[in-house]
Amino acid sequence: MHKIIFKFESGEGITAFAASGENLLEVARKTNVAIDAPCSGNAACGKCRVKLLSGQLESQKTRHITDEEYEEGWRLACVSHVISDVEVMVPDIASAYKGRMKAADLSSPEELKIFTETKDRLKVAGIALKNSLELIPVSMNVPSLDDTMPDVERLERALTAVTGIRQVRVPYTVLKVLPDKLRENNFSVQCVVRRSAKDVFVYDLYGMDEHVRAGGLVVDIGTTTVSALIIDMLNGDILAKATTGNGQIRYGADVINRIIESRKPGGQKKLQDAVIDETINPLIHTMCAACGLKPAQIYRMCVAGNTTMNHLFAGFNAEPLRTEPYIPVFFKTNSLFANDLGININPDAHIVVAPNIGSYVGGDITAGTLVSMIWNRPEFSIFIDLGTNGEIVFGNSEFMMSCACSAGPAFEGGDISCGMRATDGAIEACTIDETTMEPSFSVIGDPGQKPIGLCGSGLIDVISELFRCNMISPKGKFIREGARIRHDKYGMGSYVLAFKEDADSVKDVEITEVDIDNFIRAKGAIFSAIRTLLTSLDFDVSMVDDVYVAGGIGSGINMKNAVGIGMLPDIPLDKFHYIGNSSLSGAYAMLLSGEAERKVYELARSMTYMELSTTPGYMDEFVAACFIPHTDTSLFPSVHQAETE
Amino acid sequence: MHKIIFKFESGEGITAFAASGENLLEVARKTNVAIDAPCSGNAACGKCRVKLLSGQLESQKTRHITDEEYEEGWRLACVSHVISDVEVMVPDIASAYKGRMKAADLSSPEELKIFTETKDRLKVAGIALKNSLELIPVSMNVPSLDDTMPDVERLERALTAVTGIRQVRVPYTVLKVLPDKLRENNFSVQCVVRRSAKDVFVYDLYGMDEHVRAGGLVVDIGTTTVSALIIDMLNGDILAKATTGNGQIRYGADVINRIIESRKPGGQKKLQDAVIDETINPLIHTMCAACGLKPAQIYRMCVAGNTTMNHLFAGFNAEPLRTEPYIPVFFKTNSLFANDLGININPDAHIVVAPNIGSYVGGDITAGTLVSMIWNRPEFSIFIDLGTNGEIVFGNSEFMMSCACSAGPAFEGGDISCGMRATDGAIEACTIDETTMEPSFSVIGDPGQKPIGLCGSGLIDVISELFRCNMISPKGKFIREGARIRHDKYGMGSYVLAFKEDADSVKDVEITEVDIDNFIRAKGAIFSAIRTLLTSLDFDVSMVDDVYVAGGIGSGINMKNAVGIGMLPDIPLDKFHYIGNSSLSGAYAMLLSGEAERKVYELARSMTYMELSTTPGYMDEFVAACFIPHTDTSLFPSVHQAETE
Repeated sequence: MHKIIFKFESGEGITAFAASGENLLEVARKTNVAIDAPCSGNAACGKCRVKLLSGQLESQKTRHITDEEYEEGWRLACVSHVISDVEVMVPDIASAYKGRMKAADLSSPEELKIFTETKDRLKVAGIALKNSLELIPVSMNVPSLDDTMPDVERLERALTAVTGIRQVRVPYTVLKVLPDKLRENNFSVQCVVRRSAKDVFVYDLYGMDEHVRAGGLVVDIGTTTVSALIIDMLNGDILAKATTGNGQIRYGADVINRIIESRKPGGQKKLQDAVIDETINPLIHTMCAACGLKPAQIYRMCVAGNTTMNHLFAGFNAEPLRTEPYIPVFFKTNSLFANDLGININPDAHIVVAPNIGSYVGGDITAGTLVSMIWNRPEFSIFIDLGTNGEIVFGNSEFMMSCACSAGPAFEGGDISCGMRATDGAIEACTIDETTMEPSFSVIGDPGQKPIGLCGSGLIDVISELFRCNMISPKGKFIREGARIRHDKYGMGSYVLAFKEDADSVKDVEITEVDIDNFIRAKGAIFSAIRTLLTSLDFDVSMVDDVYVAGGIGSGINMKNAVGIGMLPDIPLDKFHYIGNSSLSGAYAMLLSGEAERKVYELARSMTYMELSTTPGYMDEFVAACFIPHTDTSLFPSVHQAETE
Repeated sequence: MHKIIFKFESGEGITAFAASGENLLEVARKTNVAIDAPCSGNAACGKCRVKLLSGQLESQKTRHITDEEYEEGWRLACVSHVISDVEVMVPDIASAYKGRMKAADLSSPEELKIFTETKDRLKVAGIALKNSLELIPVSMNVPSLDDTMPDVERLERALTAVTGIRQVRVPYTVLKVLPDKLRENNFSVQCVVRRSAKDVFVYDLYGMDEHVRAGGLVVDIGTTTVSALIIDMLNGDILAKATTGNGQIRYGADVINRIIESRKPGGQKKLQDAVIDETINPLIHTMCAACGLKPAQIYRMCVAGNTTMNHLFAGFNAEPLRTEPYIPVFFKTNSLFANDLGININPDAHIVVAPNIGSYVGGDITAGTLVSMIWNRPEFSIFIDLGTNGEIVFGNSEFMMSCACSAGPAFEGGDISCGMRATDGAIEACTIDETTMEPSFSVIGDPGQKPIGLCGSGLIDVISELFRCNMISPKGKFIREGARIRHDKYGMGSYVLAFKEDADSVKDVEITEVDIDNFIRAKGAIFSAIRTLLTSLDFDVSMVDDVYVAGGIGSGINMKNAVGIGMLPDIPLDKFHYIGNSSLSGAYAMLLSGEAERKVYELARSMTYMELSTTPGYMDEFVAACFIPHTDTSLFPSVHQAETE
């Protein structure tokens, strides 16, 4: 056995032991050291870089590591094998996905905006902001020799008297504390209950003077990013918010690689642990600490994620999702409880899952469609969710059609050499001076935060600006020379946004032609999906009244730039509305309002799903869209006009 | 720290470590070494004997250890403190309570008799032997691109089509295996379900060709003895049976001492672990091994026990049971599942608990009353359950009145120097030659089994015979001299049933005046309870048509002897019926038949409870009954007649 020390830039280290010949990426995975491997360890993406500090690794040399870097000790973990005790440094770009978890600052109105708007939209749509959780105070007679009714019957009768509902369910968790709680409080308690037409379910008991907070947990499980809220179920207030990388990232960047990993021995459990134990439970811990709630005071949970994500979350076999005829285990389920899945909240908490409508259109979209409100207007709208899977819904109050395309993780920083999610250190917006070719950018984080990488909104800006400044061709190749533009020995061009010394990173923050190519394919997938969907319905972009763009790709998208690069259709900019992470706000709505929850099930049932991969013409559309802005520039008159201005 | 080695007669040993001064009984308890301590470690019962093999103990000398025995190394664990490394021998009389667990030999008709009789009685009473568990085969369409319904919806619809019931519940445990089970079996499966009027709950899936056994678990939790069955829920067959000592025994012999122990820090969990992890789960393991069933194939469980036992089993605070106004947590509960309590069967298995009707009349009696069938006849009958708590029900199809008395553990061998439960080595029947005073006895176990101690039925016989042979006075003092009768230096008389060399024990098997005294108080408690109950209703024993005696005190009771010593009222012997362990057979009935289960709830509701401790005259009755047969011999005309014959 050899001793492996993984050192982080923070100075922390993790020690592991490995047999001679073991793959370093596998060792890291087993040890829960987060090293990005979007390609799942195929030496394709070049993101699993580590720096050898001492000892020896048997490593293959790849195009992702320059000779100079190799000399400095840089290796790809996926093609490195252990042959001695080693110490390797794991760059922060990796831990940026996973670590740096902190609760959001809720004093910033920006953080709360989409939830306030969601509430407002629900109200406008006539959806009551009322859920099944209630706080019911009951005062019982104190038992005596003449009144020897057992504790549970006493409580049940008291609740029946108040609610008029005969069936009262007191679960084991409450029975265990019942005698003490009743006696400590002289048989007068406040009960946190879930009340339905047919029964009352008791979650918890509090003394009459205790300040009760009945928490609810909202989780958007993205393929790359996981966002969560804790809300007060009694008034809808947001108590805490946090975001982190999906711990499954080390098992592959996209859903297909994750499913493949999950089919290896013990894989289903590993993938479930990665998203629950390593991602959601730490989020809960961070948020509970921030708002002073006990995890057991969270009585209900709503999860939205794509179909693969919610299958892997639940620990279900996801293999049938990716093989014909593409069958999910469930569209809708009422059978999940926190205790079953090991979610660290009240064990009896029900887990509401935003419903799937197919193997590739999941709860993130059904929840998002709710808050887009496109179902509540006679006008035709498009709802686009930019994620690792891009999903599009088109329709109005009469009909809705959906489709999904594999955009890849580029919008969230995956498959991009300096890509990262929209967290501290991410360049989220950028302009380039056409003459000097010098960039100006804004970086997420405290003032003075140096750039680490690029998040989705930053990428859109950079590529749009490179194109506007004639620095890259419509194919994404560099066509100007300059101090920030360079080519490696294979001829691959790149543009340096920030040199190492100005960056909070171990290497220059740059964008390469490979990155641009990956991004062009992502935006091409989105645009061609929109075109194919509209065409199949005999619609034209001119007939689209509004476009709602969602996704956690940054604080916002520069829509002009997104149109400029041919990602979104060329319609008047005032028709675009960025609605933020609609999967999260949709799940929030489902938790907050029983009517909203039912509405999502109704939307899911009424939505038609179009399988793009079997739709004639889609591949041609895709290929044609893999240009900036498009091979058919007539589709982008405003861009053409701008260029010729 | 000192090293403590507990050696068993079997040769096995357990090592523990203890600080200087620690109490040896406490060390044994912590180490899960079963040393009997019916008095919970107060030096009162003298049963926690251990033999010092090496090292030193600081021990108090008590009347329970003779000088000779002390010389030999015998000590009471409860008054011994660790002062050096020691090796102590723990006699088998202790492990007899806990160990020697083996599945019953079901080829013996005797073992199955009470269950066959129970079935017959239920049928006669018109109670259908049908429970809610069913095996439903369903064949579904294999999914295709034109039929992409999710797995769970496919299964739900198929079950609705067969049953006509809309609501189908597929729990997490089944969802997790659903995609694989369906595909392995080409979408044709047999479902083990629980079917009610309003829903179908799916427990398990099997292939069409698999032989399905849907098991049910019956457990009678006695204060001293725990008995269990595994039955086939689909046909009522007994698949396995086993009995063992209640692991809680080391925390005290009676319910009061157990409750006191449970209130110490961590006590509730310790008591629950003792009965579940150390008693019930091993019973399940033993029985499953014997009948080739997987624990997960046990889909429902029924438990009968006194109110304290079912509270400690469930891990509920039992303190309010023993303090005024004596309030249980529950009479009836539907909220317990195997998973909650850590019972090693199917995690979704419902735990049905025979209902309590008060703090001192519990599910053992309500279940037992069912199978006694006293509720189904116009004639007046008495049902008596002889256990550590003695319970009595009197009534007919019109009314029923119950009461409970603390008999102590004597019927099950507790509080008796050579007492043991009715297992291998127990003397279960005995006669004594009036002239030679030599005993003849039968011992439970294989032919040639030497006696280890006395079980309840053996005790009744021995005491009855000693009295018949004029060897003891009505007060239980020895009044004849002989080779087998001796007196210690304190003057306490005893009668040797088997000398050490003829016994499978480290000491003589004998019965002492203290034992006889303990037993007289036990039988006195029963008799006086019967008298008080009848008197309070203005009944006389002559008006009693039948007496059903239950309890796991041996293979049977010699009723003549039981009357002869004044334990049971002096009515014609043909009116007595020994119905075995009715708590176990009652729980069996509840599991086997949904109607029987409902009937027990109905009986529990209709039964009146009389609190003896507050009933005027009970104490006088008790004192008068602490004689053989009674201070008022006119109550036992047949005994008087026999004596004068």
